Amino acid sequence: MPECSFPFQKYPVVTLAHGAGGRFTQQLIDDIFTAAMVTVQSEHDGATFELDGVSVISTDSYVVKPLFFPGGDIGKLAVTGTCNDLAMCGAEPLVLSCGWIIQEGFATESLYQLACSMAQTAAEIGARIVTGDTKVVERRHGDGVYLNVSGVGRQCYASHPDRIQKGDRVLVSGDIGRHGSAILTQREDLRLQTPIVSDCAHLWPLVHKLGTAGVDIHCLRDLTRGGLATALAELSTTTAMRFTIQRQQVPVSEAVASVCELFGLDPLYAANEGRMVVIVPATDCDAALVALGQGAALIGEVEGGKGVIAESAFGSSQVLDLLSGEQLPRIC
Amino acid sequence: MPECSFPFQKYPVVTLAHGAGGRFTQQLIDDIFTAAMVTVQSEHDGATFELDGVSVISTDSYVVKPLFFPGGDIGKLAVTGTCNDLAMCGAEPLVLSCGWIIQEGFATESLYQLACSMAQTAAEIGARIVTGDTKVVERRHGDGVYLNVSGVGRQCYASHPDRIQKGDRVLVSGDIGRHGSAILTQREDLRLQTPIVSDCAHLWPLVHKLGTAGVDIHCLRDLTRGGLATALAELSTTTAMRFTIQRQQVPVSEAVASVCELFGLDPLYAANEGRMVVIVPATDCDAALVALGQGAALIGEVEGGKGVIAESAFGSSQVLDLLSGEQLPRIC
Repeated sequence: MPECSFPFQKYPVVTLAHGAGGRFTQQLIDDIFTAAMVTVQSEHDGATFELDGVSVISTDSYVVKPLFFPGGDIGKLAVTGTCNDLAMCGAEPLVLSCGWIIQEGFATESLYQLACSMAQTAAEIGARIVTGDTKVVERRHGDGVYLNVSGVGRQCYASHPDRIQKGDRVLVSGDIGRHGSAILTQREDLRLQTPIVSDCAHLWPLVHKLGTAGVDIHCLRDLTRGGLATALAELSTTTAMRFTIQRQQVPVSEAVASVCELFGLDPLYAANEGRMVVIVPATDCDAALVALGQGAALIGEVEGGKGVIAESAFGSSQVLDLLSGEQLPRIC
Repeated sequence: MPECSFPFQKYPVVTLAHGAGGRFTQQLIDDIFTAAMVTVQSEHDGATFELDGVSVISTDSYVVKPLFFPGGDIGKLAVTGTCNDLAMCGAEPLVLSCGWIIQEGFATESLYQLACSMAQTAAEIGARIVTGDTKVVERRHGDGVYLNVSGVGRQCYASHPDRIQKGDRVLVSGDIGRHGSAILTQREDLRLQTPIVSDCAHLWPLVHKLGTAGVDIHCLRDLTRGGLATALAELSTTTAMRFTIQRQQVPVSEAVASVCELFGLDPLYAANEGRMVVIVPATDCDAALVALGQGAALIGEVEGGKGVIAESAFGSSQVLDLLSGEQLPRIC
């Protein structure tokens, strides 16, 4: 983490005064946020940028619990999450905003750690956090930190549900369910010999690899809340087409499979924060698998009809519907 | 409010399942948010738009308490607040995102009311809410609704603190302190003969009037948390110039003056959500006052030196500094 002049010992926790817009707010902005994110354009109510062509805007608020988990924290999650939403629209993430809702009593050192995490995660793909906002709420009206990251990117590839066609192949970019399982084991204080690490990561580099390999990307969808099954169920509703997947082709690590079994969860519904489905014409399937690299898999295809069907190795098939309750609240 | 097919009687309150990304989340999005904000581009992770030239991005999270107050609600406040930040950068607000953090148990009818309020407020200046996100947190971890609105606009006028020069005139667009006083009287359940109504409103129409009148806008700053004094103190720090204002020239309504006196507050520090300072060359001062219309006032000028000085009618002067505590938490 970069040097930071904030007097952590004098002000170990955030107070309501830090959200009042006066001297204390200014100190947070100058000594914590600007110190961590050197690229913030401060001193005005917004930040300027220039973009040609088609732009994409996306927003996500993050309320994950716990704030720090194996493989990431809410800062990393917020930046990758919003950048991934842009990437799913075929856009290169370029400018980001961050909106903090901090609970009174939150440790200022942890705040700095989260700000540094955001800055580092944005820098990994050359995105810039250019503007922000800070609010503080009273004890019992928050939970450490809630974070909103909104972003704008330049659309490079025309990923959209409208482009999906019958006969398209459905690929997944890696093994699924790590994020949900990591959060769950952390919350339940479950000690595994090898802890499950969240898959929380940027997807733009993979999207760009697909694009530069000349793959005709029909549609991308990241697998967040509700997992693979929910992503496909949404796409099925939007496109009025059927998605049939082979359950045994879907990569799931042994550890994730065990945790899901223990808690009675289906890995197909487990949350991810660095995985996507990739829908491409059958002719581009091999090129897409090569571009996505190790861990990616062809899992199914798009057909006429409707709904999402998971076929097992034994010939049985199951309809995968939208989740009708909460599997795991505050997963992201 | 437009017709809405959401089954309010069956689901009178938001539950954690509404934030899980499954069927219930989809119902909120389709039957409440999309019904209210017909312009939301759903069905994908982000929304596309096209902008030429210089764009501006801004973000604000809103945690105002109470959620409904005389003259507005958190939905109207969030849209005007972020649009005003864009307007202060000389930008016409064009596309907006909305990020909801809803507390379990919040009334679904109120949610619909807030969504309609957002949609109507955006429509007033032709801005479009194109993308959104919904999270739900447990009881005791939120407070009804927290809202983030981020936005992108096209820069039409070059408002920036860098453009401020010695000799510039300082104008205010109307009487100050209404928002802070409205919230305060509401919270304290103070019954006034004529209730104070928040000034919560769009500033872009006034900015555009200034621009089309040919006023050379040097800098604009909306008066939110911390009020007029804080806005000027920040500009003084940024520009290393002195702002001297005449206290008796600053328009304050009798009702606001009384409420402030009652609570021992200085109206110069009271929050506003539809007022701005306008800094222009002396030669453009009259034209600016005409463009701003009734209620606007010339209140001071920019000089060499530093700090903000308020001169009274009796010849005394007072240094206005950044607020060092919280005057009123969760004002916006």
